[in-house]
Amino acid sequence: MQSEKVVIVVGGDLTDVAALVRRYATSHRMVGADRGALKLAELLPHFDAAIGDFDSVTPSEMEDIKKKSLVCRVLPAQKDETDTEAAIAYAIEMFNPEEIILLGAFGGRLDHLMSNLWLAFHPLVKQMTGKVSLMDRHNTLRFYLPGNYVLKKEEGKKYLSFIGMTPIKELKLTGVAYPLNGKDYEYPIALVSNEFKDTEMTFSFGSGLLAVIQSSDKRE
Amino acid sequence: MQSEKVVIVVGGDLTDVAALVRRYATSHRMVGADRGALKLAELLPHFDAAIGDFDSVTPSEMEDIKKKSLVCRVLPAQKDETDTEAAIAYAIEMFNPEEIILLGAFGGRLDHLMSNLWLAFHPLVKQMTGKVSLMDRHNTLRFYLPGNYVLKKEEGKKYLSFIGMTPIKELKLTGVAYPLNGKDYEYPIALVSNEFKDTEMTFSFGSGLLAVIQSSDKRE
Repeated sequence: MQSEKVVIVVGGDLTDVAALVRRYATSHRMVGADRGALKLAELLPHFDAAIGDFDSVTPSEMEDIKKKSLVCRVLPAQKDETDTEAAIAYAIEMFNPEEIILLGAFGGRLDHLMSNLWLAFHPLVKQMTGKVSLMDRHNTLRFYLPGNYVLKKEEGKKYLSFIGMTPIKELKLTGVAYPLNGKDYEYPIALVSNEFKDTEMTFSFGSGLLAVIQSSDKRE
Repeated sequence: MQSEKVVIVVGGDLTDVAALVRRYATSHRMVGADRGALKLAELLPHFDAAIGDFDSVTPSEMEDIKKKSLVCRVLPAQKDETDTEAAIAYAIEMFNPEEIILLGAFGGRLDHLMSNLWLAFHPLVKQMTGKVSLMDRHNTLRFYLPGNYVLKKEEGKKYLSFIGMTPIKELKLTGVAYPLNGKDYEYPIALVSNEFKDTEMTFSFGSGLLAVIQSSDKRE
């Protein structure tokens, strides 16, 4: 099965999503989860899939979503998985993705933001670690399982943060302002505001689940 | 030692902090961490303590902070703990707090927001679970260790979310739209958008670390 790149737009803070949708619309499959599908219907003539319970969408908005999405799956409002989880499951099933970028996952309600960060622990996403990014204009967040990685600096992103989602063993950071040589953390820690020394850095760790964020200040 | 109530203002999104500072200024000790101290200096004639490295504060702003704070501790910029952790440690040492409210912990940079949420795992905060709130106009978040709790509905907060910071065993929820009767979660989960059925609800769990959020939509 061919491996493709997928963008999933979810229904958080959608204020700066348009520029990123336009950047990826020609190279990536475009999937909208719930109100994220409405945003895709606003921005694009057609998109690959709309998935959600759509319980906060008006009938005329729903018409528009149906007209512009190649596949539209309406889920029951009462269900065990979130619309975002359903959209990720769909993307994995249909597109065997080499990359999934989630847009609209930050901002909005704090509980929704935490729910999106907690995707890291979801078995579906965990099998995709390193390939899943949560992105807005000022932040790119990726999840990693133990291993060795090379990370390239994204343009305009000054800060580099390493956030243990669990205890982390043997964390090594090289090519950064504050390197580490195999440090253990007994409980989840947020190591914020490190910086690239050049255009790439390497990191590795032996156990746990790690989030890495490249970010810029909002005023930048 | 007398037990007091403490507000700590930290340097995240400070746009809606003023109303909350005014609400608590007469009943609570007021402590500012780094740029949070600058905000307190703007809002109050005097406050209890300013703590931070203050490396993003101008000399004249620093003068103002020193003039209005009863205690001012300037920390080295390179240190192992964050300004917020140092302010919490100070509050615990000086005021033996029965309650600590953190303001300005949300918004701002995503890595800083996660760093504030990760306070849950910090040994200092963990010993204070149930007594520490992170608050803005739309959200109140509290951390809990295993036990039985009664939670009162805050005015205007429609949504109630239970977010496991770890795996959670035997989670029971009563008095809510979606009750649970002792459910186990093998990995951290975000149960969002539950609702109070009346003005209070009860919850309990047997193991893990739980965040509970009362929230409203931002447009409300």
